[in-house]
Amino acid sequence: MLETAFSRALSARAGQVEAYLDRVLGSTALEGEIVRPEHLMAAIRHGVLNGGKRFRPFLVMETARLFGADEARSLPVAAALECVHCYSLIHDDLPAMDDDDMRRGLPTVHRAFDEATAILAGDSLLTFAFDLVTDPTNGLGGDVRADLARRLARAAGLGGMAGGQALDLAAPGMKPDERGIVTLQSMKTGALIRFACEAGAVIGGAGQAELARMRDFGEVIGRAFQLADDLLDVTQTADAMGKATGKDAVAGKATLVSLHGQDWARGELSRLVGEADALLAPFGSAGETLVAAAHFVAERQS
Amino acid sequence: MLETAFSRALSARAGQVEAYLDRVLGSTALEGEIVRPEHLMAAIRHGVLNGGKRFRPFLVMETARLFGADEARSLPVAAALECVHCYSLIHDDLPAMDDDDMRRGLPTVHRAFDEATAILAGDSLLTFAFDLVTDPTNGLGGDVRADLARRLARAAGLGGMAGGQALDLAAPGMKPDERGIVTLQSMKTGALIRFACEAGAVIGGAGQAELARMRDFGEVIGRAFQLADDLLDVTQTADAMGKATGKDAVAGKATLVSLHGQDWARGELSRLVGEADALLAPFGSAGETLVAAAHFVAERQS
Repeated sequence: MLETAFSRALSARAGQVEAYLDRVLGSTALEGEIVRPEHLMAAIRHGVLNGGKRFRPFLVMETARLFGADEARSLPVAAALECVHCYSLIHDDLPAMDDDDMRRGLPTVHRAFDEATAILAGDSLLTFAFDLVTDPTNGLGGDVRADLARRLARAAGLGGMAGGQALDLAAPGMKPDERGIVTLQSMKTGALIRFACEAGAVIGGAGQAELARMRDFGEVIGRAFQLADDLLDVTQTADAMGKATGKDAVAGKATLVSLHGQDWARGELSRLVGEADALLAPFGSAGETLVAAAHFVAERQS
Repeated sequence: MLETAFSRALSARAGQVEAYLDRVLGSTALEGEIVRPEHLMAAIRHGVLNGGKRFRPFLVMETARLFGADEARSLPVAAALECVHCYSLIHDDLPAMDDDDMRRGLPTVHRAFDEATAILAGDSLLTFAFDLVTDPTNGLGGDVRADLARRLARAAGLGGMAGGQALDLAAPGMKPDERGIVTLQSMKTGALIRFACEAGAVIGGAGQAELARMRDFGEVIGRAFQLADDLLDVTQTADAMGKATGKDAVAGKATLVSLHGQDWARGELSRLVGEADALLAPFGSAGETLVAAAHFVAERQS
């Protein structure tokens, strides 16, 4: 698949996810909700409906498709994962955390609103993700929905993404070694990407072996994603990224790029793409879009 | 039931919940988790294992018992709700929110640790609640577990507790009227207490009419709880409460007590206890413990 064809596929999925999130994050309170406060909803929408690439939802939906599940089943789960991702960005950008003013070329939520509202917007999005993932109208059985919620909680929580951010904040003083960096990144970035591929397989009713294969694929994509990110942090300008760059060096933060250099990183990216390729080979042409996703991740410029 | 008998019942449940939380919030990573960072876990445990009354879990477990469900089924859900409650306290105490230094006689999490860790501890607890509530070993079917997760999300999220906190932060400038105060409190405090009673009924397989009755009971208990809290804020010392008091007046925050006075509040509390009594009358002596809970809430001194 050509990169342009992939970009079109990614954009099309992003459009679906954006439209879905725009609808479910509207102003009307659902059953069991009292009122959706206007100010809070504006902050939530600012943090979510911002033209993101929606790469994680893309992985959910394409993996689900690989196992024969239609969009009605995968879209709510994909959107739930994006809510978790967006909540993590809102909280990570807070002054007490990474203290970022810009995100995707716009003021971060605490800059556009205030800190308290940003904290609550993040909390609300995280909570809402579990509403979406357990949606009984998506055609998935109760066992599957409960299982997806539990997997999402483990990927996002204290032993996953949130734990990874906690390790990252402690990291500048800690000077982690290679193994420490890999663990940190596997939690902070890897866990949600692994969940994306795993969730698609669960939605599609994959067997244990296929589930393990897709989790491995997610692991490889996650490592490529983080490595490309660390590389872009040293090679790209803030303008091209829509957020601050060069932050790792300023923060004295060790990455695999700072440890092994840019040449090694480019070689490792190629190796990871090859691994992704091999993992999806058994699916033949049906796996093409996901293989293209691995290339996209490794070769992206922003 | 005498108040002392009730206090003993509450303490016994609190002991069960505390022991359960102590166990599941240990240092060993579960399947799907990578590492449980030591510093983060210490902050989480500081925010959770602090000898709280565990009133919300008590309601879950006693309501479940009313409908014949044993503790193995209700304890994980009860503990999940306590995690949500504790997360909300950790985040509400943050400098950007209510800016409190003390909680239950101990430094708040951001004072004992730091702001970033407190934000992540709260995020992690909220996430972990959905792990516990979907636990497949509790003997509840997948549909029930997914349903409980969804109800919890709605109670805690943008149209529930988090939304209520957003309204509360906006309130000093807004000068809400009586209806505004009732809505705010129904979200900020009421939603989780309603969920507690509703969840117990769902766990026990209650029918629609009984579910509605228990939700009404939760609504009444929630209103009594908040009214007693507002009353204690003006009548009690900080020492007796283990946290700052008189904050509503300082913050210029309108409550039903500031609007109608202490005498009205005491009368209204009696009325609510009577309502709670009437709602549980059909259950006869089986409902005694929950009726005693209504008295406890209305008459507590801390």
